[in-house]
Amino acid sequence: MRNRKKRGNRPSRTGPETKEASGIQQLPWQQVQNPCPPFETLAPEQVESIDAAAMKILENTGLRFQNDEALSILESHGAEVNFDTCMVKMDENLVRKHIATCPELFTLHARNPRRDVKIGRNYINFTPVSGPPNISDLDRGRRPGTYEDQCNLVKLAHCLNIVNMSGASSVEAMDLPADTRHLDLYRAQIIFGDQVWNARAIGRQRVEDAIQLNCIARGIGPEQMADAPGLLTVINVNSPLVVDKEMLEGLMAMTRHGLPCIVTPFTLAGAMSPITLAGALAQQTAEALAVIAFVQMVRPHCPVVFGGFTSNVDMRSGSPAFGTPEYIKGVLVGGQLARYYKLPYRSSNVNASNDADAQATYESAMSVWACFLSHANIINHAVGWMEGGLCASMEKYIIDAEMLQTMVEAFKPLRVSEEEFGFDSIREAGHGGHFFGTAHTMERYKTAFYTPLLSDWQNFENWQQSGAKSATVRANEIWKSLLENYQAPPIDQAVIVQMDEYIRHRKEEIRQDGIV
Amino acid sequence: MRNRKKRGNRPSRTGPETKEASGIQQLPWQQVQNPCPPFETLAPEQVESIDAAAMKILENTGLRFQNDEALSILESHGAEVNFDTCMVKMDENLVRKHIATCPELFTLHARNPRRDVKIGRNYINFTPVSGPPNISDLDRGRRPGTYEDQCNLVKLAHCLNIVNMSGASSVEAMDLPADTRHLDLYRAQIIFGDQVWNARAIGRQRVEDAIQLNCIARGIGPEQMADAPGLLTVINVNSPLVVDKEMLEGLMAMTRHGLPCIVTPFTLAGAMSPITLAGALAQQTAEALAVIAFVQMVRPHCPVVFGGFTSNVDMRSGSPAFGTPEYIKGVLVGGQLARYYKLPYRSSNVNASNDADAQATYESAMSVWACFLSHANIINHAVGWMEGGLCASMEKYIIDAEMLQTMVEAFKPLRVSEEEFGFDSIREAGHGGHFFGTAHTMERYKTAFYTPLLSDWQNFENWQQSGAKSATVRANEIWKSLLENYQAPPIDQAVIVQMDEYIRHRKEEIRQDGIV
Repeated sequence: MRNRKKRGNRPSRTGPETKEASGIQQLPWQQVQNPCPPFETLAPEQVESIDAAAMKILENTGLRFQNDEALSILESHGAEVNFDTCMVKMDENLVRKHIATCPELFTLHARNPRRDVKIGRNYINFTPVSGPPNISDLDRGRRPGTYEDQCNLVKLAHCLNIVNMSGASSVEAMDLPADTRHLDLYRAQIIFGDQVWNARAIGRQRVEDAIQLNCIARGIGPEQMADAPGLLTVINVNSPLVVDKEMLEGLMAMTRHGLPCIVTPFTLAGAMSPITLAGALAQQTAEALAVIAFVQMVRPHCPVVFGGFTSNVDMRSGSPAFGTPEYIKGVLVGGQLARYYKLPYRSSNVNASNDADAQATYESAMSVWACFLSHANIINHAVGWMEGGLCASMEKYIIDAEMLQTMVEAFKPLRVSEEEFGFDSIREAGHGGHFFGTAHTMERYKTAFYTPLLSDWQNFENWQQSGAKSATVRANEIWKSLLENYQAPPIDQAVIVQMDEYIRHRKEEIRQDGIV
Repeated sequence: MRNRKKRGNRPSRTGPETKEASGIQQLPWQQVQNPCPPFETLAPEQVESIDAAAMKILENTGLRFQNDEALSILESHGAEVNFDTCMVKMDENLVRKHIATCPELFTLHARNPRRDVKIGRNYINFTPVSGPPNISDLDRGRRPGTYEDQCNLVKLAHCLNIVNMSGASSVEAMDLPADTRHLDLYRAQIIFGDQVWNARAIGRQRVEDAIQLNCIARGIGPEQMADAPGLLTVINVNSPLVVDKEMLEGLMAMTRHGLPCIVTPFTLAGAMSPITLAGALAQQTAEALAVIAFVQMVRPHCPVVFGGFTSNVDMRSGSPAFGTPEYIKGVLVGGQLARYYKLPYRSSNVNASNDADAQATYESAMSVWACFLSHANIINHAVGWMEGGLCASMEKYIIDAEMLQTMVEAFKPLRVSEEEFGFDSIREAGHGGHFFGTAHTMERYKTAFYTPLLSDWQNFENWQQSGAKSATVRANEIWKSLLENYQAPPIDQAVIVQMDEYIRHRKEEIRQDGIV
């Protein structure tokens, strides 16, 4: 891939700058790397056993690919295809041959080249909540999302440095027509942020629109996209074992332009997959591998991501549960499997709480730790997800950002050196003394420790005098301050004009044809 | 040690029993083992470097042991002692020789032998909050603790199976005289629970009282204590580098009876130790090793625990901070050092929040994950700690219990087998079908997944109709229900009579002499 680093000369969005704008101190924008070894909970032979089970499912039970073009491609590459039932069976050798051509690491290019991101190996990336129809905040409660909410969430993703990719729709704009909504979303992503964002892969045309607009914003042609991919998307399998027509259209459109899809089965144990975690993970693996092998048939070496989304349901109510012991195990084993196949891995920060409360927080904390330990390369829904994905929460957005910042700092290597030990300061403080004034302390006190975004460490009396605000109330103040002080990243006026012309034309086309 | 398992024939306190009593489902009482390898963040040469720095501190700077008897013992074993300044310097060989006699693993015996616990290797034990002068709950707010609160907290530790040791005073009984308070606490620990509890090691006499009462409760003589130790305590170093007179008296009294002390320096980086984590951890190691070596001089092979309590202060206010990136690193490295010395390790579930809110929850979640990954053998303050230790929270107690249960279940090995994969259920559900009714599901649905203590997985509408209760509000209902349904563990009336006679006599003695 060509080096685009030299291109951008726009101001960078770093911590100190943001601080000046909003008075809120945060970590600088960064590409996080996890220096610790991944946490392996399965023995190698157990990983092989899940792999063998997945291959057995692909060979004996197969997946339904509900798209004739996809079926033809699969057949031409040697899969056993039944066009009447859409059934596709693949033998082990066929699957392994194709997944072997996936890249282990790739780069995604943002319109601001300083926001390019690496996906794979030990890189970690964070995208905000995506998909919910509802939004909630302390002021206005829970309600259907609007375009205004959607724009605010894009702005927040831009303001908060820890969110290093813009992701997909953080809330649905329920006040806009469904068939042209994606165009407004793409425009907001480009105007209000400068990071990598997601195409919407329901059908071919929504992907084509994303590519056209992404090209306009970056000043490149669609033929250059494969060399410097600038979009990604999530392709969900309709578990168990079905890939639907529109998802396959979107997937083929992405792949043909060399753009990565995150292939994510939705294997809720007990509902959409076997009730046992081993069964759910074998099915998740089978579904992901089948679609990833198909991607490589469409375009060998196209970047693609192994997505995991295994959790369990509450067997009394059928409600999905998240951040549970089962979810933690699923994330960790998913990562181990992705490494076994040498594929980049996507996981998520999830919870099932209806309130930005302690439950939302501990379920998310459990998820985030599992994601870090599993070496997930993309943590989707990293900030703001609630209610098992039915609601975006403005306050949860900030709570999650604090957790992610804490994790990123905690995973930075500890410096161990003679100078760090500070023997002089131990002598200077003396037995029973204190270290506040030692030279070693004075040299370092400004930057020695992590400065929190949300945590309040005042003593009880001071905290009470300053309003006895809970973390959720403080989070409410923080997102408002970030939005009040939001500054749009620079963009050429000509880009906006060209983009708006494209969108106007496409909206007209869609209104006339009724086709997205 | 003799096998005491055969002795007890009292009913066990398991999950189902508790459920019958309170309607609240929880995991059974258990001795948790961590099957995963410990998480190592330092390279072996970095561990050796911290070890070398600790030895350098012990040899060049030394510790003050403010107790003449202790100084004599140290001198007689070859330490360089100055009786005027209480300064003790030890060379590396002396320290290593003595810490080599510490057991890697030992058992503590409860009055109910089914509640015996193992300390060391990969065993994990949980004790409740200890030490705070204040208590808070949603009904009555924050207030100084009373004896009634203290008893309630002992009862809660008994009710909640995940808390497998009773610990020390979960809140101070501020309404009782300071010099006899420990006797009332010990009585409450014995009457209201049947697990292992802590002696209070401020001075010799409080330890002796604990031993006498523990012996009465267990029907043994003090001379049998060393063979079947039934108490433990925490010995704090007054960091930097001072061990005070009363702590040393308590420590010697414990050690002479073969009872384990958890030696815990309080190395807040920037205040009581160097501002760098490497410096704070070197000092923590030096302080802990000096006292542990002293324990082995007093009684070779006496069980003892390496305690870690390294965090940082907010350099703007001087307030201690907990659950921070620095705390996580400190816990992980502390564990690595304890393993290097082959010593059991103690860490803590901590936070600095003033409210049982999202901050309390994420700071605690960060702490708990670090504790598990570091293979801490005792997690102190595992439930109910708040405000950096100044307040016990009834609601936080339940929030923490849910987090601990989740972690314990998450760390249980995943079952991987042909039967678990459930190939039949995949065929039975069919492509795009669901698994709720498959035979594989029906056989397992009652016990397949973790049942939460606190989490509410209802959808938003149902949650709202049932009162829109936050996790903290639900936690309030849970602790009340547990206390309402509390049932005291059986105890012989003769034990109570003998115990009360001892306490009556001791209170009189203390009133007359004014000596504790």
